[in-house]
Amino acid sequence: MMKPVCYAGKEFLPIDRASLSILDLGVQRGYGIFDFLRVSRNVPLFLEDHLDRFYHSAAVMRLSIPESRQGIRDILFHLIRENNLQTSGIRLILTGGASPDGYQIIEPALSIVQQVIQSPADELAMQGIHLLTYPFQRQLPQAKTTDYLMAIWLQPWLKKNGGDDILYHQSGMISECPRSNIFIVTKQGTLATPVSNMLKGITRKQVLTLAGMSGISVEERDISLDDIKTAQEAFITSSTKRIVPVRQVDNIHLPPLEQASVTRRLWENFLELERRLTSAG
Amino acid sequence: MMKPVCYAGKEFLPIDRASLSILDLGVQRGYGIFDFLRVSRNVPLFLEDHLDRFYHSAAVMRLSIPESRQGIRDILFHLIRENNLQTSGIRLILTGGASPDGYQIIEPALSIVQQVIQSPADELAMQGIHLLTYPFQRQLPQAKTTDYLMAIWLQPWLKKNGGDDILYHQSGMISECPRSNIFIVTKQGTLATPVSNMLKGITRKQVLTLAGMSGISVEERDISLDDIKTAQEAFITSSTKRIVPVRQVDNIHLPPLEQASVTRRLWENFLELERRLTSAG
Repeated sequence: MMKPVCYAGKEFLPIDRASLSILDLGVQRGYGIFDFLRVSRNVPLFLEDHLDRFYHSAAVMRLSIPESRQGIRDILFHLIRENNLQTSGIRLILTGGASPDGYQIIEPALSIVQQVIQSPADELAMQGIHLLTYPFQRQLPQAKTTDYLMAIWLQPWLKKNGGDDILYHQSGMISECPRSNIFIVTKQGTLATPVSNMLKGITRKQVLTLAGMSGISVEERDISLDDIKTAQEAFITSSTKRIVPVRQVDNIHLPPLEQASVTRRLWENFLELERRLTSAG
Repeated sequence: MMKPVCYAGKEFLPIDRASLSILDLGVQRGYGIFDFLRVSRNVPLFLEDHLDRFYHSAAVMRLSIPESRQGIRDILFHLIRENNLQTSGIRLILTGGASPDGYQIIEPALSIVQQVIQSPADELAMQGIHLLTYPFQRQLPQAKTTDYLMAIWLQPWLKKNGGDDILYHQSGMISECPRSNIFIVTKQGTLATPVSNMLKGITRKQVLTLAGMSGISVEERDISLDDIKTAQEAFITSSTKRIVPVRQVDNIHLPPLEQASVTRRLWENFLELERRLTSAG
């Protein structure tokens, strides 16, 4: 198979030749942000939301983006046409750039990479996942930084303990999974999701909108470990995974997934929205 | 001037051509460690201590090193001979390596970079620095990771507030500066330095040894913000800067540096040790 083309160092080149200077602050000091969006039938989903967040992350991290917003769109659509992968993920990466003293930001570096991705099959996704909670708070959580040190470091622990993903919490309050947002449905049927110390996902935003349109009562608020362990339903959201129900948190089993009617309704609404956005007509 | 040669991607090449795959976990997920040592008169100072710590950091981060210890020494001495920079810094970098799914560690990547560095001139160093305290705790502090997100992010704040460097603290206890260890000398003449939630520096280790040999009483223990603000002397240590006295912490001026007799004695002892290690005979 042809290697997909990507954008790095201000040029288009095959992904296996795309690189970053060893002196880039993204390498030397882990100083970078990114955004990741899914492309379905060659349509970049929620592109403007992702660009908004990319610019927001850059601003939080005081990184200037060396391209106009239209310039980024042009690169992105060039990759989509050129690679024609149909179903894929596109990653925008902005790192601190090469720095003579290894500390000072001079000129940030923009890279854009497109790769085939696998979203979980619908059936598998709806079997639900087992979350293990872990006490941790990300640095600058309102920015989508490249700091996944803890998430990668915890992978052996996660596998050893039979979990599918990690749920971070601090001072008794849950925040997010490393690559997903978390939602619960209370026994009273209210949809609730954390609002502070976490990254605001694009799928999270769509789900909140869809819930509002469906007349589901919605709360963005602090959620405790106890709240999720006594919830009627829980699910995670991400651009790659869409909506995936949670069946277990640590050693607590949530009610059977057949009863997860709010999760299922939002899942169907989300697939419908995606179909609409990617239909040719 | 010729560009120094470095080692990256299993080959020797000019530093401006040395790079890391855009798919390396060091770029994508900020997952990497490093060590940094000073070279004086082409002698790599405290090399075995730095290699010990490099292996320790790798073990903490569950990264395998794709070279033997002797292999690393060989590369390092090859660079020193080839570049002949006399006074320089050598950085060993180990990143997670290219990962097909952007998450799983397959084969870590080793890079070794040599660059000219400036240590502060003796006179300037002895004028002392102004530390600003900031509440923060590094992730996996016992490993020398590439996570300097907070340190880089705080640079504009540091400059705006007239500080020279940052001192991290948490729950009232100080830990370290982003690239240095911190010591205090109490009014009773005891030398004390934090022992937990921080990285154990190689210069720190040498200073503790030198202090013991000089009959100075030494304590490795928790040190509070109040302890440092009421200290008789304070200084930071690092491989680049050796020993630099602290004249001010936030708005508190420490006693005049002319009275910093312990700091000065250790500084002279350290320079003497370095002279001995780098003398031709």
